[in-house]
Amino acid sequence: MIIILKPKTERKVIDELIVKIKDTGVQVHESKGENYYVLGLVGDTSRLTPEQFEGYDCVERSMRVQHPFKLASKLFHPEDTVINIEGVKIGGGNAAIIAGPCSIESEEQLLTIAKSVKESGANILRGGAYKPRSSPYSFQGMEIEGLKLLKKAKELTGLLTITEAICLDSIEHVAEYTDLIQIGARNMQNFALLKKAGKLNKPVVLKRGLSATMEEWLMAAEYIMSEGNSQVILCERGIRTFETYTRNTLDISAVPMIKEISHLPIIVDPSHAAGKWSMVEPLSKAAMAVGADGIMVEVHHQPENALSDGAQSLKPEKFKKLMENLAKMGL
Amino acid sequence: MIIILKPKTERKVIDELIVKIKDTGVQVHESKGENYYVLGLVGDTSRLTPEQFEGYDCVERSMRVQHPFKLASKLFHPEDTVINIEGVKIGGGNAAIIAGPCSIESEEQLLTIAKSVKESGANILRGGAYKPRSSPYSFQGMEIEGLKLLKKAKELTGLLTITEAICLDSIEHVAEYTDLIQIGARNMQNFALLKKAGKLNKPVVLKRGLSATMEEWLMAAEYIMSEGNSQVILCERGIRTFETYTRNTLDISAVPMIKEISHLPIIVDPSHAAGKWSMVEPLSKAAMAVGADGIMVEVHHQPENALSDGAQSLKPEKFKKLMENLAKMGL
Amino acid sequence: MIIILKPKTERKVIDELIVKIKDTGVQVHESKGENYYVLGLVGDTSRLTPEQFEGYDCVERSMRVQHPFKLASKLFHPEDTVINIEGVKIGGGNAAIIAGPCSIESEEQLLTIAKSVKESGANILRGGAYKPRSSPYSFQGMEIEGLKLLKKAKELTGLLTITEAICLDSIEHVAEYTDLIQIGARNMQNFALLKKAGKLNKPVVLKRGLSATMEEWLMAAEYIMSEGNSQVILCERGIRTFETYTRNTLDISAVPMIKEISHLPIIVDPSHAAGKWSMVEPLSKAAMAVGADGIMVEVHHQPENALSDGAQSLKPEKFKKLMENLAKMGL
Amino acid sequence: MIIILKPKTERKVIDELIVKIKDTGVQVHESKGENYYVLGLVGDTSRLTPEQFEGYDCVERSMRVQHPFKLASKLFHPEDTVINIEGVKIGGGNAAIIAGPCSIESEEQLLTIAKSVKESGANILRGGAYKPRSSPYSFQGMEIEGLKLLKKAKELTGLLTITEAICLDSIEHVAEYTDLIQIGARNMQNFALLKKAGKLNKPVVLKRGLSATMEEWLMAAEYIMSEGNSQVILCERGIRTFETYTRNTLDISAVPMIKEISHLPIIVDPSHAAGKWSMVEPLSKAAMAVGADGIMVEVHHQPENALSDGAQSLKPEKFKKLMENLAKMGL
Repeated sequence: MIIILKPKTERKVIDELIVKIKDTGVQVHESKGENYYVLGLVGDTSRLTPEQFEGYDCVERSMRVQHPFKLASKLFHPEDTVINIEGVKIGGGNAAIIAGPCSIESEEQLLTIAKSVKESGANILRGGAYKPRSSPYSFQGMEIEGLKLLKKAKELTGLLTITEAICLDSIEHVAEYTDLIQIGARNMQNFALLKKAGKLNKPVVLKRGLSATMEEWLMAAEYIMSEGNSQVILCERGIRTFETYTRNTLDISAVPMIKEISHLPIIVDPSHAAGKWSMVEPLSKAAMAVGADGIMVEVHHQPENALSDGAQSLKPEKFKKLMENLAKMGL
Repeated sequence: MIIILKPKTERKVIDELIVKIKDTGVQVHESKGENYYVLGLVGDTSRLTPEQFEGYDCVERSMRVQHPFKLASKLFHPEDTVINIEGVKIGGGNAAIIAGPCSIESEEQLLTIAKSVKESGANILRGGAYKPRSSPYSFQGMEIEGLKLLKKAKELTGLLTITEAICLDSIEHVAEYTDLIQIGARNMQNFALLKKAGKLNKPVVLKRGLSATMEEWLMAAEYIMSEGNSQVILCERGIRTFETYTRNTLDISAVPMIKEISHLPIIVDPSHAAGKWSMVEPLSKAAMAVGADGIMVEVHHQPENALSDGAQSLKPEKFKKLMENLAKMGL
Repeated sequence: MIIILKPKTERKVIDELIVKIKDTGVQVHESKGENYYVLGLVGDTSRLTPEQFEGYDCVERSMRVQHPFKLASKLFHPEDTVINIEGVKIGGGNAAIIAGPCSIESEEQLLTIAKSVKESGANILRGGAYKPRSSPYSFQGMEIEGLKLLKKAKELTGLLTITEAICLDSIEHVAEYTDLIQIGARNMQNFALLKKAGKLNKPVVLKRGLSATMEEWLMAAEYIMSEGNSQVILCERGIRTFETYTRNTLDISAVPMIKEISHLPIIVDPSHAAGKWSMVEPLSKAAMAVGADGIMVEVHHQPENALSDGAQSLKPEKFKKLMENLAKMGL
Repeated sequence: MIIILKPKTERKVIDELIVKIKDTGVQVHESKGENYYVLGLVGDTSRLTPEQFEGYDCVERSMRVQHPFKLASKLFHPEDTVINIEGVKIGGGNAAIIAGPCSIESEEQLLTIAKSVKESGANILRGGAYKPRSSPYSFQGMEIEGLKLLKKAKELTGLLTITEAICLDSIEHVAEYTDLIQIGARNMQNFALLKKAGKLNKPVVLKRGLSATMEEWLMAAEYIMSEGNSQVILCERGIRTFETYTRNTLDISAVPMIKEISHLPIIVDPSHAAGKWSMVEPLSKAAMAVGADGIMVEVHHQPENALSDGAQSLKPEKFKKLMENLAKMGL
């Protein structure tokens, strides 16, 4: 960490600050510039924050040299993590193809879609049982009944299953019935939920928050990992920007950027990013071409009747076509 | 709600869509433009979302005419809500002056600060017992011990108290020990927590999410209100933008904008908005001048030793000066 | 265009407004909702803006139904535009591969890079002669001497050439010496420059502004086209967001979105988007996979000595590899 | 400037980099951390950019310690700049009250408004003669005829005058007819225009770009100042964010932040920030309370007939009321 002192800070004040810094267990290197005096902190600074030094009157600014995440960092874990769930591998060149409806609505709906996406080449079935809806007046999900249908769909098709856990109460049920746990964008900094996920022995798909920086996202992964669960898969699903023609802005650069600094697998959700089904195929191609470890796609056989997010759902035949086109590109 | 159809949609398709729309219980007005055909939905559209109609192939776009919130809307509740807590009123010209440390660190720390802010004119004491920290390696709060100290501080000073609830487990404890419950920015769309807060009989200060639109913020208030708790106070604390010189961007316009569309009180947190103590006084003046129903200010007697957010904490004497200066301006 | 009136507006006031609207030459459809009264404007509304009606006390909000651009719109020009420059086609499945240094620094530098990118498969040479630098103390470009070097490079390699015009003074020189004119992100709403570009008979590559919506971008294209020059190529180069790990956020969704609403070719500049050379190859693959009509890539044989933007420049051998890898994917 | 090297960089490579850095005329301090090697550059680094060092393979990141602006910096010019135009002072506690129509539409319109705002206490008259409109189909301004009307209004009322210059062609006319030159948000990085403004002997009001950081804004001021014109007044007019209920987001924190790092006066334009007349009074109060050196307000006697931006224009009687209310608060 680097601490920049205000111009003309007295030596006495600098010395007092250095004593305080050393009390935290790190060493201090001093460097005098033309107008600014700079302190470099050497040692394990992961417990320190730049903000805590900015409380001193003599400090102008403070900034990190090293990323604040450790378990998620490529620096200390250079090989890509590969997660293996009953033989399905994710990461290190192995792609997760997650497909299914936004919400589970009925047995017939889920099984119809499950069979279809299985045939087209998906290896994981998604389907929301608990729905975090921005309006209290919208459909909130089938809850435990939905989880049971996911289990049934797995028995029928052999697909792995994933669904979102939205609170401390539901996450244990999710872990009981499905193969992967999803933490949604709105809960990316629900630290109580992250800690709980870290104590469960199930892979976690961690969606990026709507306005989360990549650093915050990796720190959220760090929360899960620091509790003992290292099976974290990141999922880019679009960030919030000023643009309104698309629902969110897919940050495709996050894939190669994350791969430079972290060993965790990263997949892309083109459906939520765009909010429009017509853009799901091109964005899926972009995701696989840029090097993502998979995609998560909403598929619905009757999107116009979907209880949520019909606008962004592919029909099964369009999903089939997408899978064929990805294969043609060698993706 | 308005639905814009794609150019050259066939009459048959339009008729089918109209039947589906009417099934939701609303009426449909048709309007033919030069290139576009527009449907207007009349009736209670609060259960509908524009996205659900965008699942139809023939729909180009859909948008709301009426705001999706009802209980929080000024349209149905024109008078400003005034919340009265043991004689302290908030809203309708009555200001909440909330002050105290970011985190509760010790009895001595909390009581020292409590006495001081009481003398300067605060009417509510803040102090974090559960801290939502972006790093798992940072101080996480004194938890239940902190709540007990808040109660003690109230007995000593007569100040009302507020602290943040960060999960389903802690919110009941918070409600038991303090006078107001704070829902933090990172939990603004933690719907399970919002619903629980809606079932408690305590005023809730609902902070705006880092990238929440005002509409989403009012919908989060609606979640609380729809469970029966109408005592919601909104708190603007800065939004996330591209600017890096300040920690967040205080959206001061949110105050007059919210007052045009909602009856709920709205206060401002200048400390988190700027992230720098030197900007707390000017931003507090701006907040009161623009018409806010109060401010929430971090005060610490030893900011350089604070376990969190020292950089943005005012020293007690600076808080005193701020209160005097607000009084001079008649704010 | 739709105009939403405030609840309880008097009939007399509505009638007066309708008279004013009809004076602009459009027809008015009325529609009464439960709480709101809505006016639909029918006819050519491209000269009207929603804002102009919001000046009326009785108007709550106003919004467009039809996109405000006409010449750039797919609605009135359904076939993709293909631009043909001396046999090199751009658009409709034909890709522009634009490569070269950020700034032209010397004859040796430009010719070395030109020969190399030509061999690797580029068809257009880029090189900045006039540099819009955010600091007045940075290198500002070789200006007219740079333009002459571009001409020389074309004679030598047969590559088409492009460079940025930054003001009314320089644009005519640019048009004289090069085959395409680039309008940079910072000048996307320099309307005087756009109009001038519209009067020249040269294709224009119009970069998206740092915070320009797609609508504003297409309106900037409309400025050029409305002066008579229909040869406009859009270039997505990253937008400004809160993320700091990458210089800008490449809005890859802009490619399929623009293709849905406009007939103009659209290319991608991965170099400026990421600001890091290591991300140029994955982002180029993503761009071609998503359906872009080309890429614009910075190439420099000695990036560490580059007078601008060395960090984002590919070395010639890396550019060669990129071109080979794109070919393998059939892109 | 600080340069952070990649972990495990060889000594030989570090030494080569240090030689290159010293060639630019600055000194280098070395500092070895636990995982990272850090170089500190000492001397005049204003001609250097962090990006230029990121072209080296061994460099992980580079960042500034000192702000890149010099002439605009408080570090080298601690006293507030006060600009005096014919006795009207701006800065250092003296407020500019700029009022008038968005566009000049006719003699009668301009003179009516000018007289009225003069009576209410404005000291500078604004009025657009050249309008940068996002649509080529919108009203583009009265141009030279408008400038003549501004001159006439000054003769009649004694008010100083200001109008926007939008290109190299018009800026000299603007300088000839008016007392201050405005550079609009869309031209904040039109460097050719900034340089030209720097050569004129007229105060310049420099609006912040829609997505300009404060650093870029001050660098734009630096462009003007580096050409010899130190009379620059900054104008905050709202930035672009994800929020859509207001047209832009007024960054009120920019006022105290700029005052900490620069000596230039800064004013606020509440009209463009909000885009709604009803919010102009509260935002004006906030601006003056936060410490701005003035406000720029759109006033129109018939906003519903205004050829541009009627929605955000105050009627003369509302502007009068605003001035009275500011006086009551001692602002």
